[in-house]
Amino acid sequence: MSQNLRENEVAVTAAPPTDAALRFIGHIRTPFTSRALCPRQGRPDGPECRLVLRAPWAAGLAGLERFEFAEVLYWLHESRRDLVLQSPKSDGAVRGVFSLRSPVRPNPIGLARVAILRIEGPEVIVRGLDCLDGTPLIDLKPDHCAYTVAAPDKPADRAP
Amino acid sequence: MSQNLRENEVAVTAAPPTDAALRFIGHIRTPFTSRALCPRQGRPDGPECRLVLRAPWAAGLAGLERFEFAEVLYWLHESRRDLVLQSPKSDGAVRGVFSLRSPVRPNPIGLARVAILRIEGPEVIVRGLDCLDGTPLIDLKPDHCAYTVAAPDKPADRAP
Repeated sequence: MSQNLRENEVAVTAAPPTDAALRFIGHIRTPFTSRALCPRQGRPDGPECRLVLRAPWAAGLAGLERFEFAEVLYWLHESRRDLVLQSPKSDGAVRGVFSLRSPVRPNPIGLARVAILRIEGPEVIVRGLDCLDGTPLIDLKPDHCAYTVAAPDKPADRAP
Repeated sequence: MSQNLRENEVAVTAAPPTDAALRFIGHIRTPFTSRALCPRQGRPDGPECRLVLRAPWAAGLAGLERFEFAEVLYWLHESRRDLVLQSPKSDGAVRGVFSLRSPVRPNPIGLARVAILRIEGPEVIVRGLDCLDGTPLIDLKPDHCAYTVAAPDKPADRAP
């Protein structure tokens, strides 16, 4: 897949991605039904979006209501994965993929910090997302900063 | 894998994870050679750690030197993935996996915000990690907040 390169962009040929495997835990409902409608990044005052958990994972939401903010990981399922140098402005100036927050990445995982508005059964209503309607959901966890305050210094270790 | 449950914990039987596949872009060198040595979470004044990029991805670091902080995604390769309710204190009180930052998750992806100290060829030296030495690296991108300041409002869209 080396077509559609902008000036000076570099695509690499990498081995098939077989190092680890993901299971989607649900999907995300947003008002953004095309890429053109997606904002550059989520805003705290953006529209309400829904994280819809699938069975058997909805039970894992217990306790989330005590947090105001969460980190959401999702799979950017429409992104190509082979561009190591990219030209965001299409002007011939290229930058490495790891200096960009472009959705085009070797592992196209999106990350957003969202405000938790409410939880309705298997659905979490949030603000702050920028992704396409129908985006697969990978993970959801209390926001790092919020968690730091509430957590004890060092809990019991969890065996693998 | 339903053994080793603490009181009231719940393991689920889920389909094999075949929804999406990851390729590791490198690995992480830390001083933490066992789980017991890992801190609960990374600290800004923690020890230096190294993100070691593998070919062909090292070229993707171009431009990262302009940022002070980055978000790092990594694969918690020793974690079980089937616990929907967990008891962090082993006291019978359980909470849903999505209200915890436990490494035990349906998709065990770790996320850390790190300070970028310097870049040496294919290696990025950082502070702020808490993971085991040898942890597989999934992604690396400029920190959300830092990036917001520097980025234009809405760049050209990237076609898939």
